[in-house]
Amino acid sequence: MEGIEQSVKRYFDKSVTDRERAIFEGAIALGAIYHQFVGTPICKDDEIIRTLEEAIRKTMRLQPYRESIEVKINDSLIKGQKDHPYDYETLKGKHLDLKVKTGYGGAKATVRMRYIPEIDFTLMYIEKLEEV
Amino acid sequence: MEGIEQSVKRYFDKSVTDRERAIFEGAIALGAIYHQFVGTPICKDDEIIRTLEEAIRKTMRLQPYRESIEVKINDSLIKGQKDHPYDYETLKGKHLDLKVKTGYGGAKATVRMRYIPEIDFTLMYIEKLEEV
Amino acid sequence: MEGIEQSVKRYFDKSVTDRERAIFEGAIALGAIYHQFVGTPICKDDEIIRTLEEAIRKTMRLQPYRESIEVKINDSLIKGQKDHPYDYETLKGKHLDLKVKTGYGGAKATVRMRYIPEIDFTLMYIEKLEEV
Amino acid sequence: MEGIEQSVKRYFDKSVTDRERAIFEGAIALGAIYHQFVGTPICKDDEIIRTLEEAIRKTMRLQPYRESIEVKINDSLIKGQKDHPYDYETLKGKHLDLKVKTGYGGAKATVRMRYIPEIDFTLMYIEKLEEV
Repeated sequence: MEGIEQSVKRYFDKSVTDRERAIFEGAIALGAIYHQFVGTPICKDDEIIRTLEEAIRKTMRLQPYRESIEVKINDSLIKGQKDHPYDYETLKGKHLDLKVKTGYGGAKATVRMRYIPEIDFTLMYIEKLEEV
Repeated sequence: MEGIEQSVKRYFDKSVTDRERAIFEGAIALGAIYHQFVGTPICKDDEIIRTLEEAIRKTMRLQPYRESIEVKINDSLIKGQKDHPYDYETLKGKHLDLKVKTGYGGAKATVRMRYIPEIDFTLMYIEKLEEV
Repeated sequence: MEGIEQSVKRYFDKSVTDRERAIFEGAIALGAIYHQFVGTPICKDDEIIRTLEEAIRKTMRLQPYRESIEVKINDSLIKGQKDHPYDYETLKGKHLDLKVKTGYGGAKATVRMRYIPEIDFTLMYIEKLEEV
Repeated sequence: MEGIEQSVKRYFDKSVTDRERAIFEGAIALGAIYHQFVGTPICKDDEIIRTLEEAIRKTMRLQPYRESIEVKINDSLIKGQKDHPYDYETLKGKHLDLKVKTGYGGAKATVRMRYIPEIDFTLMYIEKLEEV
């Protein structure tokens, strides 16, 4: 839809490249996913984990220029199955491995968020940039 | 698991009845679901809506004493399918129809949240109380 | 404002007591605060911590029948001041000590959320019930 | 702190420029603020609004390379002061006017989020890019 894209472009600094726009859109997705879903109750139950991953993937794909979103909730950091009423955890950044691919004009960006043990931090970074 | 339930009970006021405890647990679920998921991108796409409903239902069931959670995202208040990159909405309280059933000891509570047009407010209320 | 309270009351089970209603409103507040603010960046900086506590207290007081909200973010569980760009944490349930007092008709409820080391769980509970 | 910045840089695509990195960090902030704070109760009360703006500004500044964050909650879109228990709103994207300035190496980026009536959308965009 030409119309809206042109309307939107007017608000951006004129020097922004396609590659920068692809990075911008991917980075928004990372910040959004983290701060929307952290705190959700989880436990080491495959069906629950898969359903939450799928909901994150499908809803967050709706934002503009996202080409794909891969979401993996790292079960190895979560305790075993619930065996009493208070036995569950809540989603934390370190549980999430996110890969978001965006495309804008002739550029594609792959941005990532994952827990990196070496620096003990859940890092958001630009993994790959491509021209198409 | 006797142990944890007894440990937990010590922190509650001694006069709390089973019925009050069932209400307490249901009300927490309503506040939690609203404030966890409001803001999630959505559009009028059955598959996306169903997946998000399922993720809410399954994750929020993990909190203690929830017997069932029904989640309906009211599509009629959401615009049609995405036809340009900026064409989507975000989940608001008024889209959500929630029914949470909790049970504690001999009591069951059904609590509800839904948008009520007559008062133009998304109301949380205690729909039904039962002894078993 | 008589009008709205009467309109709202119609949706509640007829047998709900004032005391149960006070519990209901307090429990919603606990679920809401946890799931709204968990994930917010924090560090061991008094000014930042105090400002966030104040924002939680003032905004969450707006929901119905809350008489007071006490929020304490437990600094002892947070690392020291930021000394490089990646040196901060995010708010977790265990950092929060919440005390919400509600009143409805002739009843008052004090509900609480805090991390309890003995059970290694951030527990929500009904601390005190009073008739007035 | 040279150490952590170098460690982190290794994870980024080698071709990422300082300007792209500044954009990346700013965009994360926009996604994060929106999805962290949308849903918070608010009303047209200057003290409450100012406290929430301040909490957003101070906490979100903790993330890396943010030089300043300006937050304005647009009161004109919010109803008047609370005059009954159910009289409040919750923060929506359209209430927020955000300006985040980031700096990385020799580049500075100003990114923005605000509701734009002409397109009826709360747009996130890159407002200005500078070399220093």
